[in-house]
This record gives sequence, structure tokens and C-alpha cells, in this order.
Amino acid sequence: MTIICLLIHLFILLQIIDQEINPHVAKWEEEGQFPAHKIFKILGNAGFLGVNKPVEYGGLGLDFSFSLAVAEELGNINCGGIPMAIGVQSDMATPALARFGSAELKKEFLQPTIMGDVVACLGVSETGAGSDVATVRKGDEYIINGGKMWTTNGTQADWMCLLANTSEGPAHKNKSLICLPMKLPGVHIARKIDKIGMKASDTAEVFFDDVRVPCTNVIGQEGMGFTYQMLQFQEERLWGVANILTMMENVIEETINYTRQRKIFKQPILYHQVVHFRLAELQTEVELLRSLLHRATALYIKGNDVTKLASMAKLKAGRLARELGDSCLQYWGGMGFTSDVLVSRFYRDSRLMSIGAGADEVMLSIICKYMDTLPRK
Amino acid sequence: MTIICLLIHLFILLQIIDQEINPHVAKWEEEGQFPAHKIFKILGNAGFLGVNKPVEYGGLGLDFSFSLAVAEELGNINCGGIPMAIGVQSDMATPALARFGSAELKKEFLQPTIMGDVVACLGVSETGAGSDVATVRKGDEYIINGGKMWTTNGTQADWMCLLANTSEGPAHKNKSLICLPMKLPGVHIARKIDKIGMKASDTAEVFFDDVRVPCTNVIGQEGMGFTYQMLQFQEERLWGVANILTMMENVIEETINYTRQRKIFKQPILYHQVVHFRLAELQTEVELLRSLLHRATALYIKGNDVTKLASMAKLKAGRLARELGDSCLQYWGGMGFTSDVLVSRFYRDSRLMSIGAGADEVMLSIICKYMDTLPRK
Amino acid sequence: MTIICLLIHLFILLQIIDQEINPHVAKWEEEGQFPAHKIFKILGNAGFLGVNKPVEYGGLGLDFSFSLAVAEELGNINCGGIPMAIGVQSDMATPALARFGSAELKKEFLQPTIMGDVVACLGVSETGAGSDVATVRKGDEYIINGGKMWTTNGTQADWMCLLANTSEGPAHKNKSLICLPMKLPGVHIARKIDKIGMKASDTAEVFFDDVRVPCTNVIGQEGMGFTYQMLQFQEERLWGVANILTMMENVIEETINYTRQRKIFKQPILYHQVVHFRLAELQTEVELLRSLLHRATALYIKGNDVTKLASMAKLKAGRLARELGDSCLQYWGGMGFTSDVLVSRFYRDSRLMSIGAGADEVMLSIICKYMDTLPRK
Amino acid sequence: MTIICLLIHLFILLQIIDQEINPHVAKWEEEGQFPAHKIFKILGNAGFLGVNKPVEYGGLGLDFSFSLAVAEELGNINCGGIPMAIGVQSDMATPALARFGSAELKKEFLQPTIMGDVVACLGVSETGAGSDVATVRKGDEYIINGGKMWTTNGTQADWMCLLANTSEGPAHKNKSLICLPMKLPGVHIARKIDKIGMKASDTAEVFFDDVRVPCTNVIGQEGMGFTYQMLQFQEERLWGVANILTMMENVIEETINYTRQRKIFKQPILYHQVVHFRLAELQTEVELLRSLLHRATALYIKGNDVTKLASMAKLKAGRLARELGDSCLQYWGGMGFTSDVLVSRFYRDSRLMSIGAGADEVMLSIICKYMDTLPRK
Repeated sequence: MTIICLLIHLFILLQIIDQEINPHVAKWEEEGQFPAHKIFKILGNAGFLGVNKPVEYGGLGLDFSFSLAVAEELGNINCGGIPMAIGVQSDMATPALARFGSAELKKEFLQPTIMGDVVACLGVSETGAGSDVATVRKGDEYIINGGKMWTTNGTQADWMCLLANTSEGPAHKNKSLICLPMKLPGVHIARKIDKIGMKASDTAEVFFDDVRVPCTNVIGQEGMGFTYQMLQFQEERLWGVANILTMMENVIEETINYTRQRKIFKQPILYHQVVHFRLAELQTEVELLRSLLHRATALYIKGNDVTKLASMAKLKAGRLARELGDSCLQYWGGMGFTSDVLVSRFYRDSRLMSIGAGADEVMLSIICKYMDTLPRK
Repeated sequence: MTIICLLIHLFILLQIIDQEINPHVAKWEEEGQFPAHKIFKILGNAGFLGVNKPVEYGGLGLDFSFSLAVAEELGNINCGGIPMAIGVQSDMATPALARFGSAELKKEFLQPTIMGDVVACLGVSETGAGSDVATVRKGDEYIINGGKMWTTNGTQADWMCLLANTSEGPAHKNKSLICLPMKLPGVHIARKIDKIGMKASDTAEVFFDDVRVPCTNVIGQEGMGFTYQMLQFQEERLWGVANILTMMENVIEETINYTRQRKIFKQPILYHQVVHFRLAELQTEVELLRSLLHRATALYIKGNDVTKLASMAKLKAGRLARELGDSCLQYWGGMGFTSDVLVSRFYRDSRLMSIGAGADEVMLSIICKYMDTLPRK
Repeated sequence: MTIICLLIHLFILLQIIDQEINPHVAKWEEEGQFPAHKIFKILGNAGFLGVNKPVEYGGLGLDFSFSLAVAEELGNINCGGIPMAIGVQSDMATPALARFGSAELKKEFLQPTIMGDVVACLGVSETGAGSDVATVRKGDEYIINGGKMWTTNGTQADWMCLLANTSEGPAHKNKSLICLPMKLPGVHIARKIDKIGMKASDTAEVFFDDVRVPCTNVIGQEGMGFTYQMLQFQEERLWGVANILTMMENVIEETINYTRQRKIFKQPILYHQVVHFRLAELQTEVELLRSLLHRATALYIKGNDVTKLASMAKLKAGRLARELGDSCLQYWGGMGFTSDVLVSRFYRDSRLMSIGAGADEVMLSIICKYMDTLPRK
Repeated sequence: MTIICLLIHLFILLQIIDQEINPHVAKWEEEGQFPAHKIFKILGNAGFLGVNKPVEYGGLGLDFSFSLAVAEELGNINCGGIPMAIGVQSDMATPALARFGSAELKKEFLQPTIMGDVVACLGVSETGAGSDVATVRKGDEYIINGGKMWTTNGTQADWMCLLANTSEGPAHKNKSLICLPMKLPGVHIARKIDKIGMKASDTAEVFFDDVRVPCTNVIGQEGMGFTYQMLQFQEERLWGVANILTMMENVIEETINYTRQRKIFKQPILYHQVVHFRLAELQTEVELLRSLLHRATALYIKGNDVTKLASMAKLKAGRLARELGDSCLQYWGGMGFTSDVLVSRFYRDSRLMSIGAGADEVMLSIICKYMDTLPRK
């Protein structure tokens, strides 16, 4: 597959966004959910859910930079929740499975996920401090108990990539990633969480009550779950950065257009120096972030560990999104405080970037670890 | 009335908040409106809608610092929209009327407003650039056409304190404040605006289509509307600052409580140095703002023009609220992104502080005017 | 003494600054020292070194708010080093002595300090971590060993108010404040420290090598040194804030004047919106700080502990000074990078505000202690 | 020349820095000048003054990315002034000459500059608003009058690349770049400017009093000076960014080392969370800037106009340097306020980055121009 093909592909993606998604965003935002199965099928048919996944399981077999090109394009969806849900499906719940899973697991879970026939979710956040999801092995099965919070796609998902304790021992070596069908007895969707943003994306609390899964559903080696998830997080974080970059550009662009046309005392708001200078500062920060993303990606597809750079990009993306959303909203005046405009949706949606997938403080800890500046015990 | 009495009064106010208001806030937020007539009647009976208004019209006849004490107490309501609505009634739509209105006007509009028998609103924001509300004088009446945006209490109000053009001439000398009954023929409530915060407070777009009002409904002198409104804005802005100060304190306090109890790796989040240092920085800024408010108030009740200091306080309040809400929300993790907590409501509600009642940029222009640093033409 | 008298007094102070100090500042800055004995004598004669000190020892017997009025006036000196040196003499090395010292000690040390006949310094900063100045009691004398860093006035001082360990035990109960004549055998001035700012003020490292002082030189009770110093710090910090406030106002004013007169493309720099808006933001912060200072001072002279508010003011003063100096310097272009202008001197001098007399991080810890947010062991 | 060779070369450069430059920096800083002729000869002999200049004039003939590699290495010099002086010689005063100059001009000025036999300077800043350097053509000569400010290397230079008006007409089409020997009659070095930083680098005000230069000394086409200088500025700005990046890294590294070893209450300062988190934030910003520099450079050496990205990088470099210097200095406590440490030198030196070579506000205007957000007249 050549770059030309991808460009054509991206054009198709833009069409899907314009025709199948954006016209319905407002309604789905209000309903607190979008029809994941329907949309994923459309995207799966067009190949966008497995850009860098193996061809034998329905993927396009391209490198990860092409996944990011898709992530950037998905930033043109008029809300943050739907791209995030797509990202969970394509690049957050599946990288470990694609890389380390057995052929059987890939056939059962990866392939339909790539095809858009099923909806995936990722279970990594605990419901409470210290309340890890625990498993007891019984014969060829694990018996699973506990719960997961903040599960994107959680109410619609057909299977979960679950991080669970599968043994005693140190925290970094006692976990496994398990493919868990959500229709199994004992899986309870506790509630749909009411969020301040990302409203079109459903977020669930999921509880497990003696849920039984075959041990063969473990991805790769038992006990390697934490390590796999750390690897998987690299892609998740880079994907999130690529996705939000486009949104930030769109917010700046819409703000330029709006302030150019809206006048105060006969002068466009844009022509006030504090406005166009501020937008130039924000655009500068966007270009800085884009540059770091490209640098990290280039290193990553060559096989390097880019945990440090990916964490930096994630940290910056979260902070810049808050700053940019807040600053641009200001120039919309009263309109910015209504729910009708992209900038106010971005303001609410993007606040999650500094919280989800490892909060800013987690990113800082990772960076410190790589700088060797953490306290030694 | 002594200070002791006010303390008793404030205790009563706290009871009203705890019993009549806070238990229903969540529902009213969801419904996008609170029962203004009912709540205002309760507050009016207890004397809280006319603290610094003349005794002969039902007020308490205290100085403005007592109004601010009430504003601070109202900050204990668990949302921003209801206090704002109360403030419009007590200190934003009525100061000019109380100071400059005729005895007849005060009897008709001020007294029932103070008693909580009617709901007031303030019409100052234009629907579009250059589209001032215009009037034509015909005999003893004005015929009014045009529209007003962002009208708090607009869908429930019984009368509006309307800023309208009543003559030709320079922008600062052609306007009047008019008491306008909302039930008059030709008054249309165009729509309830869907906002990202302040949800329990209704905000309307109001249109006037050949509405006829007696000329005697003009407050004070015709042509002095702009000047009166500038005076009125001083109280509005100081009131807003006093009110949000309490909310900021409450958000800090709740964040301390939450982070003290929530643990990461067995250590309370609060005990992370970045967390308690950050909260100390924010508390410092809150004390700075409180000090400026007190200084400006002391000067104001002695009869000084405090436009500059009030504008500074308003500017700082808006910016600090954004910073404080954003920073505190971060420490709540995923919970901060849900609609269930005070901090996330504050995050959305308080964003209005930098936009409404004169945006930050307007405050800066006023300050510059007093510093004599604006370009001379 | 009435307020009228003080106004006359402040007028005299302004004359002293204009005639005896400012004309020589540039030279003294270059020489790295100003003639403390000469200047202090002039100030002492006029009564400015003991504004709130007892009349019987030569002071004016006013309350501390008058000391701050003098501190504000001293901010008109065209550098930071000389006011700081004066402040050490009048309000940093002497409050504990004036409040807790014996009549004999006050006669010997306080009176000539207030008269300007001797130069005082304050020895509180250790030369290294854990290297407290230690004393051994021998009969009626202490034998002192150790060293003090960052001693303002250190090379010219006649006596030092020294914080030294006088017993074993917990860190907060083993220290005493001692009046130490600097001409005693064993007192060594190790070196004059070369600083990036505050150049007209000498800063010494002082070492003690078996220095013998009578035990009667202890101020107040033995073992109370830490507590006294904490009290003394309140005045030191408020004094520093009052002093730098005037400098900040002067820097803003000079920047307005300069940018009004300097043109780019025929337009005064001041008329660029980013410039006058930025200056308005800075002026706003200055007024916030001034308000907090006044509030803390009013509470302090009524006898309250204002450690928390004074620490907040000190913290804000340090941070605002950095922000203000940096921002204003920018608008001077190349001139701001020269040593010839007030703004660049302020930029360098004021950097000390966040470091000396307790760094920002110490202030934050104090504030956290009062907020009860520090980790409990 | 291969990359291997450059690595060897950079190793040689490091040796020169360690042996010929760094041991003398403190002295040169104090003297306010470094021996440019001596140092440039050493660098010229080793090939570092013409990395991307044509081989026929003594250059290495590499692309501009190699110049930036050298700029980064020069960041290891323990002050900002000397690298800046070298940069003027190698990449700020000579790009236009190398690209557009006649063979004769290159022989006379470029070759000895690359060899380190002469010292070059760049004359672009006017002494006052509207006081452009003007020329009158008389026969084959220009007669030059006027002055230039802020001329780095100005007191030691043998020739100046001078931007002067050579005709009437619009400001962007009436200027030429002229090679001007500094020993010509009528060239006056008005004074060495006393700066707050960059002390080892001399900065002069240069005046021209009927200076006669042959018209053949014009670089390229007459009237194209502004255009050439804009091109030349791209390399100047990228060079400055590359150079300061290394310094920023060094300041972070030294701060880590210092705070790791210095203890407060038995705990290294570094282990305070606010310290290592803050350093992680700063390192993140450094990596962002590095990424943008690499992206802009890669585009530039492929022949693209990178004015926008170079301006963004310059803007960010200036602002980050101020933030980073100020933040790191804080953690050095009193030591940071002395002249003895790298961080305090960086604090003073790097302040120029936001002022020189086009102030931040100029960069913002350029970026706005490319974003098409400037007011249309």
C-alpha cells in the first residue's frame, strides 16, 4: 500500500466523517451515546480500524505513522467522544493483542474488531485505590472478581481487554491482559457515568462477579500484563496527541473565522492585537507539539522505546488543550458560553486529556524516572 | 440594625440555603431553571433582596458592605446560576432605580422586587453589533424595538431594567434606563439559551416589537442611562466578586477534604507536594482578591468612585476562577470529569465570570482608561 | 506624633533620597557598597530608623504601619540594595531586641542603631546544611563557633543580631538571639559575595572562631530565639513587601513614560494593545498585593498573628516582582538589556525577593502549615 | 565530508572550548570583552566558521544542518556572549554574502572571515526611530551617514555587513546590504554599551560620518537588502535556537546535580516533588523546541521558506529561556543570586533572546502575517 492509496483512503475517511458522523453529532451528544456498532462497521469496512494491524486479520499492514495519520483525520469529527471511542477500538485495546496474542485469540477478538463487527473496550482503571481486579485460577479457567472504572465504550462493548492480577508478587509482575467477552455471566455494567464532556461517548463502571474465562484468553505470557500495557500505552498516548492536534487547529481556525467576522466598534475582534497575538502564540505551541509527535513517531516506527517522548507529548497535549480551549473560548464572548459552538465543546471534552490514559502527574513521574530525578528509597 | 442582627440574619440565610435551595440544586440544574418566584419570595420575606435599599420600600437600609456580606453567604449555594439570579434581583437590576428613580417607579417596581413578589431582569447586552434597542417617542410613550441577549432571569421576569437609545447623539449620552413590564404586548422571549454552565439559571433572548411604555418609566433623567449603568456596574461587579470568593474557598476546601481521603500508593493525594503547594498558591490568590474587594468596598461606601478597583477585582476574579477551577479539578482525577461534584460545576459555571458583566478585555480597557494609557486619537 | 507630622517627615525623607542618596546610586552600585554609616546617620538624625521603636531609645513611638509608610517611601531609592540595608537596620535586626531585650541591651545596641551611630546586621542563614552556629557556655560567657552566610551589611556592621544554638534539644527550642559586637576577637568577615543584583549592598560571609560574648547579651529568654525570629520575620516580610511595592509602581510608571515617547512605525509602543493591556494586568496585581499588605498590617497592629497573611504577601511579592520586571523590561527593547535603566536594575535586584528572608518554598510551607495540609508523620 | 568526519570535528570543537575558551570565560566576562581575533583564528583554522560555506572560499561545503550541529556544540561555552559573537561571524553576517555576493566581494570579505583572519559584524539596528542609515551615490561610491546600535563584535570588527538605504521608495525595496571595512575614515565607534548580560561580548554603537564605499561593495542587487536580510535572519534565528538549546540542557543538568547534592532537613532538594516535577516540565519544553528546530531545519535544507517555523522557534526559545533560567535559579537559593554559577549567568545572558534579532513581538507579527490575521488597512 502506497502513500497515494492512503491519501485516497483519508479522503474516504473525510467523506465518512462528513456524511455519516458529523450530521448526527449534536443528537448523539444529547443522547449521551453514539451507535458504535453501526459506525465501527462503516469504518471497519473501509479499513480504518486496523491500519497498522496484520493483513491476515483484516488490517492494512502499514506502520504506526499511518495510524496516526488516521487519528489526525478523525480530529475533524465535531466532538471529542467519538474519535476517542474509535481510538479505543483501533489503537488502545488492541496493540498488545496484535503483537503478543495467540493466533486463536486474534482470530476470535482482533479480526472482528478490525472488521468493525464487534466493539472493544479497555479495562485498566481500578474502581478504588487498592481494589485491583483479582483472579483465582481454577483448572483451565480464571475466576474474576472486582471492578473497572472509566471504561470507554463500556456499555456497548462486546469484549474487554482486561488488566487483572493473575498472581501474587510485585505489582509490576503479577498482572495479565485477558480478552474478556462482555456477555459472560457475572459481568455487570454498573452505571453510565455522567460526564462534563465527551458526552457522545459512553463511559461505564464494570463489575465482575465470579466471571469465568478460559486461561487461554490471556494475551501473551501470564504476568506480563503490566509490561504489555506500558507498551500499549505508548500507542494510546501518541494516538491521543495526533487526534487532538487536529481539533486544536480547527478550534483556532474557527476562532479566526468568527472573530474576523464579528465586530466591536466597527473593528473585527480579530484585529485587536491581543487576539491575533494570542492566537499566534497558541499556533506556535501547536506546531511545537506536532513537531515532537512527528519526532517521537519516527523513532517509534524504527523500533525505539519512546516512552519518555510520548509521555512528554501527552503531558503537553493535555496542558495545551486546556490553555487553548480556555483562551479561544474567551474571544467568542457569550457565544463561547453556549453549547452550540465547537469551541465550548472542545473546552469541555479536551479537559479529559490531562486526566485520562495517565494523568499529567503520572506523565511527570514517568519523565522524572527517565531523567533519574525521583527520590531513591 | 446592628452587626449582631446581620449575623443572625446570615444564619437565617444559611438555613434557607441548606433547606430550601441546596437540596434541589441538582434537579434544577437538570431542568435548566429554578423557581425564581418561590425562592425570591422566601428571600424577600427574610429581607435579603434589599439589604442596602431604602427602608421605606422594604429594604434594610444598610450600607453596601452588608449586601456584599450576603453575596458572600450566597456563595454557599451549590451552583453559580442561582446566586447570580438572586444578585440580578437584589444588586444588578435595581441600584439605579433605588438611587435615581421617581417615588412612583420605586413603588411600582422596586418595592415588589425587594419583597420578592416579582422577578426582575436587566437588559443591557445587544443581540448584535450595532443593533441597539431603539425607541421612538410618541406623545407620552416610547415605542420600543430591538432585542437584548444573555438576559438572566429573562424567561421568568416580570419586569426588565432596560438600557435603550432614547435620542440621537453620542453613544454615552443617548441612552436611558427604562422600567419595562415584561407582560406588555410586543415583548417576545425568543429562546432559552443552552449554556455550558449556570444551568439552573435561565438565560433568554428578548425581542421588542413596537412595545409601548410610558415616558415616566424612565429612571432618573433621560439620556443618563449609560452613566447610571456604569454606576450600577460597580455594584454588580463587586457583588459578583464577593459571591465567587466563597465558591472558590469552598472548592479549595472540598478539594483538600477529597485529596486527604483519597490515596495513591497508600499516600493521600494531598500529601504530594505539588498538590498542597498548589492549593496554597491558590489560597494566596484568593486572599489577595478578598483584600482588594474589602479595600474597594470600604472606599465605595465612603462615596468614592471605585470603577478602577472594581474593574480590577472583576478581572482578577474571572481569571482566578478559571485557574482555580481548572487546577482543583485536576486533583479529583476521573471524578473531576463527572457532573457529580462541586468542582466540575464550578469549572463550568465560573467560566462566565470572565465573559459576563463586561468581559476581561472590557475591564482591561477601563483600567487602561484610568491609567491614561489608551491610544489618543 | 500625628499623621500630619509623618507626612512632613515623609517629605523630608523624599528630600534625603533625592539629595543624599539617588545622585550617588550609580557610583555605589559600581563600587559594590554604599557608605552605610554616613547614610544611616542622616536617616537616624531625621528619625527614620526607629519609627515604631520606643521613644526612650530614640524612636518615634508610632505603630508599625508608620514603619511601612517609610518602607514604601524608601522604595523611591533607585536601587534595591540600599533600601534593603536600611530595612535591616530599622526593621529586621531590631524588632526582637526592642520587644524582648533588657534595658541594658537596648541602651547598648538599640539606641545607637536608631540614632544611626552604628550599623546593624542580622545573622540567621547558615553557611551550610546542618552547620548551625553553636555555642558553649563557659561561666558568664558563650563561646561561639560557626558561620553565617548572606549577611546584608555584613562587612560594615558594628553588631549582629545572631541566631545561635545555645542548648541541645529540639530545633525550635534550642536557639537564642544574641547581640554580638562585630569587633570582637574571632569574628572574621570571610568575603564579600559577588551578586547579580543588590550591588550597592554588601553581603558577607561571617565566621566565628571561639568568639566570647557575655550571656547577658541574649535577647529575652534563652531558648526562645527561634520563636522571636519568627515574630521578627513578620515585620521583615511586611517591610520588604511595602518597600518593593513602590519600586514596582515606579517601574510601571517609567515604562509607561518610555513607551509613550518611543515610537515604532510612528506609533508609540505604549499604544500597542498588548503593551497597555499587559501593564494594566500588572498594575492590577500590584493593587491586589497592596490591598493584602494593608489588610495584614491593620490586623498586625491590632495584635494579631499575621504569619499566614505576611507569608502570602511575601510569596506574591517575590513572584510578582519577577513577572513585572521581566515583562516591563521587554518593552524597553535593547535599552532594557543595558545597565543604564531602572527597569534592568529592578530586574536583577528584585530577583532576590523570592530567595531571601525565606524562599518562596518556605513561604508555601508556612501557608500549608496554617492550612493544615502538610503530610502528617 | 561524511558525518563521521563531523563527529571528529565536533570532538575537536569540544576540545577547543575546554582548553582555549572556558578556562578564560570568567576573566573575559569581567573585562567585558573576549579576544575575538585570537579565538576566531583558532576556530577558523579548524573549519568551524564556514561549515556550510563554499569550499572555494575556505568553507566545508556542508548543508546548514551541520552549522546547527556546531551551534549546538558551542552552547557548551560557559557564557552566552562568546557563542553569540561566533555566530555573528559564521552564520549571521555572512549568509547573504555567501549566497548573493560577487566573487570579488567573497574573496575580500567572506574568505578571511571563514579563515578567522578578520572579525565581522552585522549592522541592522537603527540608533533611533526613523533614523535609517542613508547613503548618497556619488560616482562609483556611496557616501554613508547615520548610525547603528547594538552591534555585536562592533568594537573589534574589521568589516560590517551593513543594511543601508540606497534609494528612495518603499521601505522594503530601498535598502541594500553593503560590505563596509571598519577602518574607513568616518567610521566612529561611539561607545561600548554596558549590558546586564552577554558581558564577554562587546556591543557597540557605530556612527558613519561621510563614509565612502565603492558601489561594488553592495551584496547582490541594489535594493534587495531587506529581502536578503529576511533570508539571512532565518539562519540567524535557527542558529540562535540551536545554540541556546544546549545551554538550557546544561542549566537543567547542573541544577539536577546541585539540588541532588544540596540537602534541606537531610533530604536532597531535588527530591522535593515541586523541584523534580518542575524540571521535568522544563525538559519537556526543551524537547518540544528541539523537535521544532529539527523539523524546520529539515525543511530549510530542502529549500523551503521556513520563516514562519523559524520565527516560532525563536519566539519559543526566548520565552522558554526566561522561564527556565528563572525557575532553575530559584532552586539554587542564595547561590543562584551570586555571579559565580552558570545558572545566574544564563539568567542574565539569555534575557537577550527575546529582544535581539527581532523581539518576541516582531516574531508574533511575522507569524500573524503567515496566519493572515493582521488587520487589513
